[in-house]
Amino acid sequence: MGYTETTIEGRNAVMEAFRSGKTVDKIFILDGCQDGPINSIKREAKKAGCLVKFVNKERLDQLSETGKHQGVIAYIAAYDYAELEELLQDARDKNEKPFLFLLDGIEDPHNLGAIIRTAHQAGAHGVVIPKNRAVGLTATVARTSAGALNYLKVAKVTNLGQTIDKLKEEGMWFVCADMNGTTMYDLDLKGSIGLVIGAEGEGVSRLVKEKCDYLASIPMKGKIDSLNASVAAGVLAYEIVRQNR
Amino acid sequence: MGYTETTIEGRNAVMEAFRSGKTVDKIFILDGCQDGPINSIKREAKKAGCLVKFVNKERLDQLSETGKHQGVIAYIAAYDYAELEELLQDARDKNEKPFLFLLDGIEDPHNLGAIIRTAHQAGAHGVVIPKNRAVGLTATVARTSAGALNYLKVAKVTNLGQTIDKLKEEGMWFVCADMNGTTMYDLDLKGSIGLVIGAEGEGVSRLVKEKCDYLASIPMKGKIDSLNASVAAGVLAYEIVRQNR
Repeated sequence: MGYTETTIEGRNAVMEAFRSGKTVDKIFILDGCQDGPINSIKREAKKAGCLVKFVNKERLDQLSETGKHQGVIAYIAAYDYAELEELLQDARDKNEKPFLFLLDGIEDPHNLGAIIRTAHQAGAHGVVIPKNRAVGLTATVARTSAGALNYLKVAKVTNLGQTIDKLKEEGMWFVCADMNGTTMYDLDLKGSIGLVIGAEGEGVSRLVKEKCDYLASIPMKGKIDSLNASVAAGVLAYEIVRQNR
Repeated sequence: MGYTETTIEGRNAVMEAFRSGKTVDKIFILDGCQDGPINSIKREAKKAGCLVKFVNKERLDQLSETGKHQGVIAYIAAYDYAELEELLQDARDKNEKPFLFLLDGIEDPHNLGAIIRTAHQAGAHGVVIPKNRAVGLTATVARTSAGALNYLKVAKVTNLGQTIDKLKEEGMWFVCADMNGTTMYDLDLKGSIGLVIGAEGEGVSRLVKEKCDYLASIPMKGKIDSLNASVAAGVLAYEIVRQNR
């Protein structure tokens, strides 16, 4: 996947980024700013489904590298995203059954990077992330993936639920990590499978969970709630690997 | 486990910390400093087996919270360590076969925290870390453990190899994570078991590896070397959990 730049500052530059079709992951806008150009940027951001955060001047000054942010800073995908179809094509090319990771709201770039690394090592054909609620492919994600981002395709989709429906038509089925699910060892995790992982704390959103065929739980013997999201993804992924040997 | 303070600055304060038997994890000393009190501190540090780093004045000033470091800053264990025997006693109290994690040179506090969290959730009775090469139980480790550090015992030992010998006399046997080992699914991982995890990159040191009964590998299908250390620990731990069901 090709590497591009990461930050764009100033009204014209940010507007141009949207117009040229760049993947804007996140924009920071000066809180209370209501003029024409800023409103146009907000509209574009909404259309593109990118994350918008309103911050005060001190925070924006702190984030600025140029010192000339004019009330807006945009974060651009450090790596290019793939189309969903390319992930499936990768499976076909390798003559393998599709194995995908779908991440619902993973916001920590270290977790995203570690999950991309795990997905690649477990033999998955790609990672799917939603446009709205996830962190993008930033430099931190690339570094934490330990190089895996150069090999594994990542697709960004508008609606994770609709994507699941579409992939089901391709013969895939879906298992979702859930504390209240069936113990993973007791499930049949063979075949063309999508592993759905949610954010720590919140877990997988209700609408996405309802689309899944199975809810799988990792046995928890301790007195706390859960595992780190990237550890949980790894444990479930390798149970899938084991069953598909 | 009880929480204590984390940083001590200044010559007398650091010397007093050693004298009173506090667990000093790491000290930073001004590079080139050779006077009497500093030499005494170096001797105490060597005796205690704590990590010593020599840094320049700018770095030390940066680390200092009080601005009065006098050339030395010590990091004190945020949590108390347990004795090795207490870990085994925990297994006996629960009427379970001992299941321990032994970490050889994990230096990243986020990884240590995530591994402690995983160990607790996988039902282990404790984590063993070596005095010299590991990060201590700092505030970051506690936070990343998501509360597990309050429940799981962590023992710090002088020599990991000797500890393995001692635990073998108690009937335990040891499996070490190693890229060139036997695929973990093909090993018998039942019984009283110690799981040995090394640092990313370096892996488990030769002397420790030679003490292990089995080398276990996680299947890697990708084009990069390994998994994140805490993910690898989780994947192996849950293969042990599966086999011991």
